[in-house]
Amino acid sequence: MFTSRPIGLVSSPYKETREIPKGLGAKHQADGVLNILPEFEAGLTDIEGFSHLIVLWEFARSDGFSLLGTPPSDNRPHGVFATRSPRRPNPIGLTIVELLRRKGCELQVRGVDMLDGTPVLDIKPLLSSIPGEKLRRGWLAEAEARRHE
Amino acid sequence: MFTSRPIGLVSSPYKETREIPKGLGAKHQADGVLNILPEFEAGLTDIEGFSHLIVLWEFARSDGFSLLGTPPSDNRPHGVFATRSPRRPNPIGLTIVELLRRKGCELQVRGVDMLDGTPVLDIKPLLSSIPGEKLRRGWLAEAEARRHE
Repeated sequence: MFTSRPIGLVSSPYKETREIPKGLGAKHQADGVLNILPEFEAGLTDIEGFSHLIVLWEFARSDGFSLLGTPPSDNRPHGVFATRSPRRPNPIGLTIVELLRRKGCELQVRGVDMLDGTPVLDIKPLLSSIPGEKLRRGWLAEAEARRHE
Repeated sequence: MFTSRPIGLVSSPYKETREIPKGLGAKHQADGVLNILPEFEAGLTDIEGFSHLIVLWEFARSDGFSLLGTPPSDNRPHGVFATRSPRRPNPIGLTIVELLRRKGCELQVRGVDMLDGTPVLDIKPLLSSIPGEKLRRGWLAEAEARRHE
């Protein structure tokens, strides 16, 4: 097992959790910056070539976990591993962002849904995507269908 | 910061790192099982509805990190955050698997590329994918192009 360490911090327009768009149809198109610590800058070499990045970050304000929870997109409880709830056994968040520009240690990105000051744990290039027609979205598709009834 | 804790272990056909298909054109279609610990079973509620899961896991055999490395798919060094290298500041791996079947605490999945016994840290439903035509794959696309020259 390991102890997490930040490789940088997110600059985001969201200062409080309630400001972050949530639930069905939420669009995450906010621009933000991943400010990577200078000691990790060499790790960004060649990252400019990728259009999308997977950002792993820490739910720093989350305290403990719940195995069942009712997400904002539904009125029924679901297992934590079938949701993006912040109250997870390992408080790791994941966001796919579009990389707009790199300036040294700064990655300017689109699509942030983290709070300002969120610790970044890791960045990975997005290499492939599952074609839409092969993707099933479980309870979320059902909740959407109910809302459109 | 937090200390990681396993929510389960991967059963995989790969007992040694060298057995895992790597590099350009590697296909990850091996079947495996995510054996979730009984204390976390409630967190799997409704996971059956999703076709694909994002699995976060720990590079348990990795020791320390390197900011630059030469991946098996190229003969040039790249930054760790532009690769899937195991030697990362936070040793977190990510694999997208297809969920074939759930049997209680066992998730039977396709597409494992982890070693047998790898600790699972988190599971999240895959909710969307970036359309292929919008995805740029940086140095990897260039390395592929060079190989096909």
